[in-house]
Amino acid sequence: AAHGARKMEDYGRFLALLASTLLVGFVSVILSLVWVFHYREGLSWDGSPGEFNWHPVLIITGFVFIQGIAIIVYRLPWTWKCSKLLMKFIHAGLNTIALILAIVSMVAVFEFHNAKNIPNMYSLHSWIGLTAVIFYSLQLLLGFAVFLLPFAPVHLRVVLMPIHVYSGLTIFATVIATSLMGITEKLIFSLKNPAYSASPPEATLVNCLGLLLVIFGSLILWMASRPHWKRPPAENAKILRLIAATPEGTQVESTITNSGNADKSDLRINTEAARKQNINFDEAGQRSTM
Amino acid sequence: AAHGARKMEDYGRFLALLASTLLVGFVSVILSLVWVFHYREGLSWDGSPGEFNWHPVLIITGFVFIQGIAIIVYRLPWTWKCSKLLMKFIHAGLNTIALILAIVSMVAVFEFHNAKNIPNMYSLHSWIGLTAVIFYSLQLLLGFAVFLLPFAPVHLRVVLMPIHVYSGLTIFATVIATSLMGITEKLIFSLKNPAYSASPPEATLVNCLGLLLVIFGSLILWMASRPHWKRPPAENAKILRLIAATPEGTQVESTITNSGNADKSDLRINTEAARKQNINFDEAGQRSTM
Repeated sequence: AAHGARKMEDYGRFLALLASTLLVGFVSVILSLVWVFHYREGLSWDGSPGEFNWHPVLIITGFVFIQGIAIIVYRLPWTWKCSKLLMKFIHAGLNTIALILAIVSMVAVFEFHNAKNIPNMYSLHSWIGLTAVIFYSLQLLLGFAVFLLPFAPVHLRVVLMPIHVYSGLTIFATVIATSLMGITEKLIFSLKNPAYSASPPEATLVNCLGLLLVIFGSLILWMASRPHWKRPPAENAKILRLIAATPEGTQVESTITNSGNADKSDLRINTEAARKQNINFDEAGQRSTM
Repeated sequence: AAHGARKMEDYGRFLALLASTLLVGFVSVILSLVWVFHYREGLSWDGSPGEFNWHPVLIITGFVFIQGIAIIVYRLPWTWKCSKLLMKFIHAGLNTIALILAIVSMVAVFEFHNAKNIPNMYSLHSWIGLTAVIFYSLQLLLGFAVFLLPFAPVHLRVVLMPIHVYSGLTIFATVIATSLMGITEKLIFSLKNPAYSASPPEATLVNCLGLLLVIFGSLILWMASRPHWKRPPAENAKILRLIAATPEGTQVESTITNSGNADKSDLRINTEAARKQNINFDEAGQRSTM
């Protein structure tokens, strides 16, 4: 009973954090709209500043908010009864939407620059931003080829999964850093009278937007990196029952039973070896759950 | 023998990454010096732009490079024979040096601004930068009080260690993001004829510096987050032998022997439960190694 109560408390804590994260992300999107509609030229697609304004709105909506949700989608406890394959499609789908919005937002800037004869790709913001989009595309392609399509051998999935997780989180952090540079650039360029340094209301609003992006990123990284909030490999137990008759199955089941002696809500073996085991269970039963 | 060869290969890979990281960090410091001495007004402490220039140099040297080394100091394999207490002093000492350099670099900016009648604390860079310095100070104080001083109870160390690691890495990433904003600001403000958008050599050099900071941060985060590069809790085995006579000791040793059956180079149990066990061993033998 005490164990169940602790699990519920942990579940409640996850939900509270998730609600805060969604709120911070949602308010960020709203602030970006307030910025471009109340203080700037609104949205249009005609080479005017209104076209540029798609850039912050789509980056914050897609490349920050939707990417953040895509990262933690495996952590949502009510999805743990869904098939891993479905969750992979949702993860890949959200990341694809984020990439498309990021690309459209870049096109908006290039078209605006070209219409105004402003050079492209001179700033650190543009260098790191373009690099992030390229790495994000590669990450999506590689993730699709290795983890979603059924062709990659298990040992390749095992080797690439920690790299996939690391690069995903690093790209996400880099995207937020790039947004902060973009905000800095835009405020310096567009606030002239009064200047950015005079702290007009627009500057304060957009600085707050920048702070919210850092908080959103920090919350996503916290939720993504708590081992006890990971999707449990519980389906494996079912598969184990199916393969228990084979010699490998028996060996595998004894391993599970051993770790079952420990407190399951706390114990999570986070190792190459354990991952290999999980993968091997899956190989016997169904496509990999990694 | 195959196992030993794999360990050596892994050791070689760690050394290659460490050498790359040190090189990238070192080149970043050099580039910051080239920036301020070749393209800007050099260094001075008289309210002139030469005083401002301490800001990028000290931030890159202290708050990025030295903080990065402080983060991975437990990962250096040749330190694993040193006492954990010594390593904690080195970790805390490097972070203290980084904080002092960050504070001096902020004083340089405030004095420069005040001498030139430029407002302080209006930019997103200043908001997030000051927040990072405050959180970094709190992290250092809390780390000192909980993990270095011998007073904190074991269960508190267990609860706070994952938070300490998470906030350390998040603050580090935020510091790099803040540096990129600072670089963006400084290039826009100081490049006038030719402007930043005309990509003069100074802009290209400093953009490259910004890219190197992102690469440095990514390498540090990779090294810090590989579970098999963590300092092994091997000293615990010695302590275990000392306490094996007690009933608790016997129970504890049987646990260790069980996990010893698996491949030790791969298997690393990364759990609250396992951390508690490690801590409990330490409690019996010496101060915590966490």
